[in-house]
Amino acid sequence: MELSNKVLQPIISLFKSLSTEEEKRLKKAVEGIIGERPKNITLFQLAFRHTSASKETNIEGFRESNERLEYLGDAVLGMIVAEFLFTKYPFRDEGFLTEIRSRIVNRESLNQIAKKLGLDKFIEYDGNFRGMSPRSSVYGDALEAFVGAVYMDKGFSFVRKFVINNLLTHFDLDSIVQNNANFKSQIIEWGQRQNHEIRFEITEERGNWHHREFISQLYVDDEPFAKGNGYSKKKAEQSAAEQACIKLDLIG
Amino acid sequence: MELSNKVLQPIISLFKSLSTEEEKRLKKAVEGIIGERPKNITLFQLAFRHTSASKETNIEGFRESNERLEYLGDAVLGMIVAEFLFTKYPFRDEGFLTEIRSRIVNRESLNQIAKKLGLDKFIEYDGNFRGMSPRSSVYGDALEAFVGAVYMDKGFSFVRKFVINNLLTHFDLDSIVQNNANFKSQIIEWGQRQNHEIRFEITEERGNWHHREFISQLYVDDEPFAKGNGYSKKKAEQSAAEQACIKLDLIG
Repeated sequence: MELSNKVLQPIISLFKSLSTEEEKRLKKAVEGIIGERPKNITLFQLAFRHTSASKETNIEGFRESNERLEYLGDAVLGMIVAEFLFTKYPFRDEGFLTEIRSRIVNRESLNQIAKKLGLDKFIEYDGNFRGMSPRSSVYGDALEAFVGAVYMDKGFSFVRKFVINNLLTHFDLDSIVQNNANFKSQIIEWGQRQNHEIRFEITEERGNWHHREFISQLYVDDEPFAKGNGYSKKKAEQSAAEQACIKLDLIG
Repeated sequence: MELSNKVLQPIISLFKSLSTEEEKRLKKAVEGIIGERPKNITLFQLAFRHTSASKETNIEGFRESNERLEYLGDAVLGMIVAEFLFTKYPFRDEGFLTEIRSRIVNRESLNQIAKKLGLDKFIEYDGNFRGMSPRSSVYGDALEAFVGAVYMDKGFSFVRKFVINNLLTHFDLDSIVQNNANFKSQIIEWGQRQNHEIRFEITEERGNWHHREFISQLYVDDEPFAKGNGYSKKKAEQSAAEQACIKLDLIG
């Protein structure tokens, strides 16, 4: 891909070179994961460098770690998953697609997949870092950075196949969809678990026969808790349920 | 692109066909915008259909509008802009890239570009809709849906060039970067405009010489207002400033 060289030229020059031995080992590992020899191993080396192991550069204020590649990989992954779901569920609305995507691309699941791929063995971080945060996203961040590196090294069509065939296959989509298809069922399940009564009420109806908008009020134990609106009663309830799930931090 | 037919086959069959005249007019307009004849005009027809003009389908609970394509186009646009900035600014960190991206991909600027491209003339919506929301994102939403349609119709490489050459050229990136490069300057400018004193203080310092974390407290008129953390004092202040900007709704 023509971009790769242009962007990395200055970065490469700042890197300490890998020893022949280290380079061979990393190349082999990457090849094992993506199924092809990487062109530019420096990209992958960078993808594995956690912020805690970031290195000073000769550019003032700029430290090198996998954060930039993580930013890129997050966008690449988000888009590929968006298209995958768009194609797979042609008759589901964007609320559904957004929710299923957030259940796929979240810290917990990315961490798990990173470990399944064995990325954790290659991550460079400061030894003191481990203890810092029990809800760490080090592995998932490295996976996102890895996706960014694959994109820069191999182009869009390759990374798209990699994500679909090597990452998304770790998910049981049917069960994700069945168990968590909507916020309404999530909040109702939460109520059952926590012994709270959940009730919806359409409190307002605007517009004319042609264009309607509904407002739904969600009550927890008869106390107003969250509101939502939508073009149908169902959508308004979904939206109120979503607000409630956000308030209760129930969303992955 | 091979996907396009597979996904759209069922949707196409639900559509009322365009009259030859309407179809010609839309094809010509799309060609004028993207520089090539669209293969599947139905995609673009759908991209212009606002929710308020959504149509019932014979699939229960599923109404057709541009919301699904908007969801897809949002992800496509986000990724292309992410890569564009990643490449353009090889020595800026992910906080900078994220912020500049959010200044490009926001409701206001997408609305404006949609109008510049003339998309507003093609949007189908319910006549009563206009008055409903003064902060409407109808045009920007249609632009995102349009980007989704271009991707489905022409593939990634084409949509990437379209976004870079036809959308991003509407932005004066240098001035975006200069004026709004950081949250700290934004919050300080806000303080000057609103006559509030803004002050930062490093309240905590954790870690050892190798790995440090700083906590910054932002004060508005000597009242604690927002907190942030980071691997350098500068980053911690940026992070506190970002939290303050979010609280004050200063972010596009």
